[in-house]
Amino acid sequence: MAVGEYPFPSMPPLAGIKLATASAGIKKPGRQDVVLIELAAGTRSAGVFTRNAFCAAPVTLCREYLKQASPRYLVINSGNANACTGERGRRDAIATSEAVAQLSGVQAAQVLPFSTGVIGEPLPVNKIVNVLPQAHAGLSEANWEAAAKAIMTTDTRPKGYTASVEHQGKTITVNGIAKGAGMIKPNMGTMLAYIATDADIAQPVLDDLCKEAANRSFNRITIDGDTSTNDSCILMATGQSGAEAITEASGDLYEKVRGLIIDAHEYLAKCIVADGEGATKFVTLAVSGGASQDECLQVGYAVAHSPLIKTALFASDPNWGRIVAAVGYAGVPALDANKVRIHLNDTLIVEEGGRAEGYTEEQGQAVMDQAEITIRIDLGRGGCAETLWTTDLSHEYVRINADYRS
Amino acid sequence: MAVGEYPFPSMPPLAGIKLATASAGIKKPGRQDVVLIELAAGTRSAGVFTRNAFCAAPVTLCREYLKQASPRYLVINSGNANACTGERGRRDAIATSEAVAQLSGVQAAQVLPFSTGVIGEPLPVNKIVNVLPQAHAGLSEANWEAAAKAIMTTDTRPKGYTASVEHQGKTITVNGIAKGAGMIKPNMGTMLAYIATDADIAQPVLDDLCKEAANRSFNRITIDGDTSTNDSCILMATGQSGAEAITEASGDLYEKVRGLIIDAHEYLAKCIVADGEGATKFVTLAVSGGASQDECLQVGYAVAHSPLIKTALFASDPNWGRIVAAVGYAGVPALDANKVRIHLNDTLIVEEGGRAEGYTEEQGQAVMDQAEITIRIDLGRGGCAETLWTTDLSHEYVRINADYRS
Repeated sequence: MAVGEYPFPSMPPLAGIKLATASAGIKKPGRQDVVLIELAAGTRSAGVFTRNAFCAAPVTLCREYLKQASPRYLVINSGNANACTGERGRRDAIATSEAVAQLSGVQAAQVLPFSTGVIGEPLPVNKIVNVLPQAHAGLSEANWEAAAKAIMTTDTRPKGYTASVEHQGKTITVNGIAKGAGMIKPNMGTMLAYIATDADIAQPVLDDLCKEAANRSFNRITIDGDTSTNDSCILMATGQSGAEAITEASGDLYEKVRGLIIDAHEYLAKCIVADGEGATKFVTLAVSGGASQDECLQVGYAVAHSPLIKTALFASDPNWGRIVAAVGYAGVPALDANKVRIHLNDTLIVEEGGRAEGYTEEQGQAVMDQAEITIRIDLGRGGCAETLWTTDLSHEYVRINADYRS
Repeated sequence: MAVGEYPFPSMPPLAGIKLATASAGIKKPGRQDVVLIELAAGTRSAGVFTRNAFCAAPVTLCREYLKQASPRYLVINSGNANACTGERGRRDAIATSEAVAQLSGVQAAQVLPFSTGVIGEPLPVNKIVNVLPQAHAGLSEANWEAAAKAIMTTDTRPKGYTASVEHQGKTITVNGIAKGAGMIKPNMGTMLAYIATDADIAQPVLDDLCKEAANRSFNRITIDGDTSTNDSCILMATGQSGAEAITEASGDLYEKVRGLIIDAHEYLAKCIVADGEGATKFVTLAVSGGASQDECLQVGYAVAHSPLIKTALFASDPNWGRIVAAVGYAGVPALDANKVRIHLNDTLIVEEGGRAEGYTEEQGQAVMDQAEITIRIDLGRGGCAETLWTTDLSHEYVRINADYRS
């Protein structure tokens, strides 16, 4: 199940990036489950990663490697997260990087490893290493969609983004792929995202863009409130568009490229929500009127994580009492319930501590019957606002997650 | 669906307490949905209530009334929460108290009102007032079970507790009833609990006992993480046992009575969890080795609220990776994953950042196949511990909550 239409775009080549997939039989025989991405020499990269204390071995290694060298390769497997695998997990992740390094004549620290899938099972590292030569031989600028498919786990569809801008006669492109459908929360769900541009972006600018874009996208989506051990978002700039270099966070070219990069992150984040496990609704939570960003997020997450609200959304039931209850228990200090106003899309449902005058169940039902719904919550106590995206909680969610390992 | 056997006990009369039920047709015609409880003159009462900012009108009124006078009556309705009903809700709650006051010749502030059910619908106050004379005429020491049934909403069974101790030739009894099955979280779910003793307990001692017992019970259970607008727990001491008065928090008699009162709260809290909406598992979360109580609770709730863990519990799937992930994202600062040890019942599943040596899937499966499971998490960084109780997340949960209003 998935909400709305997010078709995979026709992805153009992006100068400086080659991709390949292979089938290592990690979880299911025959499935493409390994991706190799080659970054041309001179490419700059930045990354943000899960803050989970039990972060997976490849995440720890990515953090270390990014400090030591500029990445030339990314190697990704689906079907096994290599998380909670102790010392052995670390050795396995290193072995994967080393195998790519040997094939291609770079240092191991220039090969970032990524894994997604079941937690706690040893990584079948030999299976992966065995197919790397084949992957290496197959590297091509044309494989974006194949790569997007190979990193899927419980995803029902591949997720991709592409857009270009012109600047002084040069075309600058941003391509991105992502995976994720469950265990999605800020800091971040079992989510992998790889976004590349052929713009030439100085490292400090790239680092800031990576953080800003992730914060406005992958750190604002939540499906089940769970934050995975493996989430990683990598932003790469190959510098091969021929356009002038972006050396600081200002100017026309910077703004254009920043816009595309943020758009790529947001679009891919929304693709993940729309493909949320068992999702039948795409829900935008727009919290405004807060005294701080934090309290807006607090209220947004209380609503987004309430199973009672999520099941009501699934049932298309305008049970606004559950929304009010969640706003009330979110923990905002000294919240004045009488000042809170809540809209479903443009329909005012709550004001002055109760149901809005003139609100009818029919109005609420008309909104809830739609697949895409915005819940607007005005706390009436300040000028801060935050937006989150989430899904409903369906029978299908339980089915997927109760059956996942079987 | 409900877990285990928690049969309603044979409840003896408790000197100083009379109860009656009536059928006001609030939500379903013919159902007993109003309870009147009479407390003999001289009874002392204490209460703890939801901290939800959108707390219901009766909750606000209970807090005010308890400061003004000693309660002589409690009037409770199921089927409608009288929450988010604005000024009208307050007038309706006052009208209910005034109607009982008129019938019985006490002040309105001596009548505590309680409501549970759907949020946001106006209370059908006339229906309630109309049946109060009949309820008043039917007051009897024998109606504990009838009262426990009349306060039920999505509960599948009435919840009751009784126990007695002897002290210097006198028998002291504690009786309690409670309701609650969904929207249960600390501070507290749609939960009502009425616990009475015929001990003679000074007001300050009673107030402290009420807080302590609620904290060790109703504030340590969670079904869906939602905290309701209406939760209330009232502790009453009629003083009619004939035993000596308890004037301070020490001594043999105090310890005996305190033991019973805490036991009553814990038992009723466990009854609520075992009757959690759609529950097929009763899960104890024992978090130890914390540097503070708060971080133990933080970890406990992260695990208790994870839909991924709850669906795995429903599937009897020893998917311990999800438990590890939740411990990791709970937000404990500088948690050392290598020091965390996790047991399922007595089976060590995680240590040194990975799956415990010697752990087999069969061992985990044997634990998960049981209806009552303890997840023990040792954070390995201090001497604090906390225990929580929760349930799994089943298809039935989604069915109940997606259909609740239809």
